[in-house]
Amino acid sequence: MTVRALFFDVFGTLVDWRSGVLAELRAMGEARGVEADWEAIADGWRDRYLPILQSVNAGERAWADLDVLHRATLDDVLGAQGVAGLGDEDRERLVGAWHRLDTWPDTRAGLERLRSRFVLATLSNGHVALLVDLARRNDLRFDAILSAQMRGLYKPHAEVYRHGAELLGVAPGEAMMVAAHPGDLLAASAAGLRMAFVRRVRERGPGGPVAVAPDGVDAAGDDLVAVAGALGA
Amino acid sequence: MTVRALFFDVFGTLVDWRSGVLAELRAMGEARGVEADWEAIADGWRDRYLPILQSVNAGERAWADLDVLHRATLDDVLGAQGVAGLGDEDRERLVGAWHRLDTWPDTRAGLERLRSRFVLATLSNGHVALLVDLARRNDLRFDAILSAQMRGLYKPHAEVYRHGAELLGVAPGEAMMVAAHPGDLLAASAAGLRMAFVRRVRERGPGGPVAVAPDGVDAAGDDLVAVAGALGA
Repeated sequence: MTVRALFFDVFGTLVDWRSGVLAELRAMGEARGVEADWEAIADGWRDRYLPILQSVNAGERAWADLDVLHRATLDDVLGAQGVAGLGDEDRERLVGAWHRLDTWPDTRAGLERLRSRFVLATLSNGHVALLVDLARRNDLRFDAILSAQMRGLYKPHAEVYRHGAELLGVAPGEAMMVAAHPGDLLAASAAGLRMAFVRRVRERGPGGPVAVAPDGVDAAGDDLVAVAGALGA
Repeated sequence: MTVRALFFDVFGTLVDWRSGVLAELRAMGEARGVEADWEAIADGWRDRYLPILQSVNAGERAWADLDVLHRATLDDVLGAQGVAGLGDEDRERLVGAWHRLDTWPDTRAGLERLRSRFVLATLSNGHVALLVDLARRNDLRFDAILSAQMRGLYKPHAEVYRHGAELLGVAPGEAMMVAAHPGDLLAASAAGLRMAFVRRVRERGPGGPVAVAPDGVDAAGDDLVAVAGALGA
């Protein structure tokens, strides 16, 4: 079956969330005179991401968008790290940092190449408003902004992938998930999609853990331009 | 309240459905040796559009995408016009004509100007796959492809407009519907959106009826570039 559409994970795969979030945390700390281990806070913030999404998928928490969930997990990690002195407005501002992330250097060029051959859509846990902010900021062109929001569940729930394919009018086997995260790819594969792995060695910062391609990927590369080459675009 | 997002109707407002559909009907008639009043068939096909959408909104018909509904209304209008001799494949091909429409000459330039100032999204009764085909074919750039499909209802149902604003993360009053059809605009306005009217004098063909701007529009123009000017973009 020919691949017609590519679905992109966004945080980590297309944009460098850690550098952007860390820079805003540090700047906020300086502005408020708060000292803390901002790297641990950035990583701890992200570590609380999947568990809170799973609580939505499990029906333990009503669906809410990532701004709401990021606020809950920020409060949690700041508490765990003993950080006081950041008020409500400060925290809302930090939640907004996820709307102001920059791409990896290859992202824009990789997408342009891929768009000549495939229909490109985001398929992110970010809500539409967040994805629109990131795409406009970084001048990224997609054929469609699709979000887990449209299904009222979060990846890696199988329904999110199936719904994305349905919206684009393609069979699951005609769609390929492009992501830096094995869990996302394996869940997409279980839903019938194909898999392209992008190896983002710096997603977790210098010296941080690096994800390994899951077995059975259809394409892999160290950046999006390499993935485009592997897919013949 | 400042307008942040523009929602675009597509058929008639951005693309010239009548010329494209008529050309494919005529070509099909020639290829099959079928003579008919193709203009009456094109207009009759479109006249059956709103009623079938209303039957979905009324719960009399399960939600189905425009390809399915266009097939039902095509069969109906061909029957009413006494046209035989077009088979199943021919009819599917004609349904596909709605995926191969061209824009009005000003559409692309108007959208480019408007995108410098506003977030642009489709808000069409066309399903996502259809809108993606039209945008790719005509090199149109939107920040998001939003469709009535995402709400499982059709315009002019108020929920479609509200859902669009919700997905973009704007209040209804921060969004403006841009359309050539008073019914679409008035329904958007009733849902709290603002209204921009595009006067498409040729939508119904040479000498066809021309829609008049409803009372209370926030902007109006004879094409999309004029609307951009009226909105300061």
